[in-house]
Amino acid sequence: MITLYDLVFQEDRRPSPFCWRAKFAMAHKGLEWTEVPVGFTEKDRIAFADSKLLPVIKDDETAVKDSWAIACYLDKAYPGKLLFANEQERLAAQLANGWVDVAVNGALFPLVVGDLVERVRPEDKAYIIESRGKRLGTTDFAAFQAKAREKGVAAFGVALEPARRVLREYKFLGGASPNYSDYALFGTFMWAYSVSPLALLQADDPVHGWRERMFDQLGGLARKAKPA
Amino acid sequence: MITLYDLVFQEDRRPSPFCWRAKFAMAHKGLEWTEVPVGFTEKDRIAFADSKLLPVIKDDETAVKDSWAIACYLDKAYPGKLLFANEQERLAAQLANGWVDVAVNGALFPLVVGDLVERVRPEDKAYIIESRGKRLGTTDFAAFQAKAREKGVAAFGVALEPARRVLREYKFLGGASPNYSDYALFGTFMWAYSVSPLALLQADDPVHGWRERMFDQLGGLARKAKPA
Repeated sequence: MITLYDLVFQEDRRPSPFCWRAKFAMAHKGLEWTEVPVGFTEKDRIAFADSKLLPVIKDDETAVKDSWAIACYLDKAYPGKLLFANEQERLAAQLANGWVDVAVNGALFPLVVGDLVERVRPEDKAYIIESRGKRLGTTDFAAFQAKAREKGVAAFGVALEPARRVLREYKFLGGASPNYSDYALFGTFMWAYSVSPLALLQADDPVHGWRERMFDQLGGLARKAKPA
Repeated sequence: MITLYDLVFQEDRRPSPFCWRAKFAMAHKGLEWTEVPVGFTEKDRIAFADSKLLPVIKDDETAVKDSWAIACYLDKAYPGKLLFANEQERLAAQLANGWVDVAVNGALFPLVVGDLVERVRPEDKAYIIESRGKRLGTTDFAAFQAKAREKGVAAFGVALEPARRVLREYKFLGGASPNYSDYALFGTFMWAYSVSPLALLQADDPVHGWRERMFDQLGGLARKAKPA
């Protein structure tokens, strides 16, 4: 049995896009897991994996940190229903995964940071205010977020254009069914969904329809998540 | 025999990243072609393809516009040495191609626009000043470029991070040999190479080593290009 150490916010919300990637990867492969919620200030609970970041998984005696390493590990340890049918697919997914990290998550973060800070657990608030404050150069996250939204929602839409081009013609980035690139990108939308009521997508955006389809995948796994 | 209509600058320079993609795609497949140089103000020469943008190819009676459509056309018309072995690879390449268009080309354009305007043919200068001036809100391209370079070179480096992650371990985005994602990204570097002396990559950047390897691919095709 696999144990997933999963970032937790207030009211048991689980917004981490990287933890969602690990969940989607395990569900894709038909694996079961138990979850251990870990708050921002409880990183000692994942020290066994030599990690300060989530997700971490523990599979019997094997500890694996980093969502991409977890995906690669799962395909090696459990060769059924591969995430990556071959090296070509794996490298293409690594590139797409990086695109989501840099271009998409980077465009989303300023738009939801105020909402996000509001939803961390009370005991983690001081930590998040200090760490995100340093990154942004301000601790007035609500003002920062409001300012970012003036042009940032449109910029987020532009950042999604690579996916939109595929989704104009196909149901998923993987074609007829989702692949790891879909999971990586959908993790970002689960992050937004868990912390912010901001409407990110117009109803006529092909990415909007795709997001709805992704909610239905893997037995409706994402529908069980608590929204903002 | 295929005819490629290729954007031309001063002294027969050929900077269009999209035209480079078409050249790399044809060379990858072992196809031969002849080139018709087309200046910015000679778009009437590609009206037969119902296009105002380059590249356009003419293959006997078939006209195809847009580098992505050209790649897909070539695989259908010439099934030898496929660019995309299957739909999965094609969709992954379409996503990567879009990433280059939006995130990478978008980060490069402001850094080289001044150098670029300097190198268009004299007869195209008025056109480029008006069209790029509208896009940027200024026609002082040198000042715009200088300002953009203050933070923009570092931002361009960040935009490349998805490729860097793959290239830390593999020779090409395609693994042991280049695939269409390599060609799409390398087209961007050929654009820069043809119009600007700006150093974009540090020597210890994995993307730097990859760019050198890409110059050697396809019989050294890119080495024949005229640098800025």
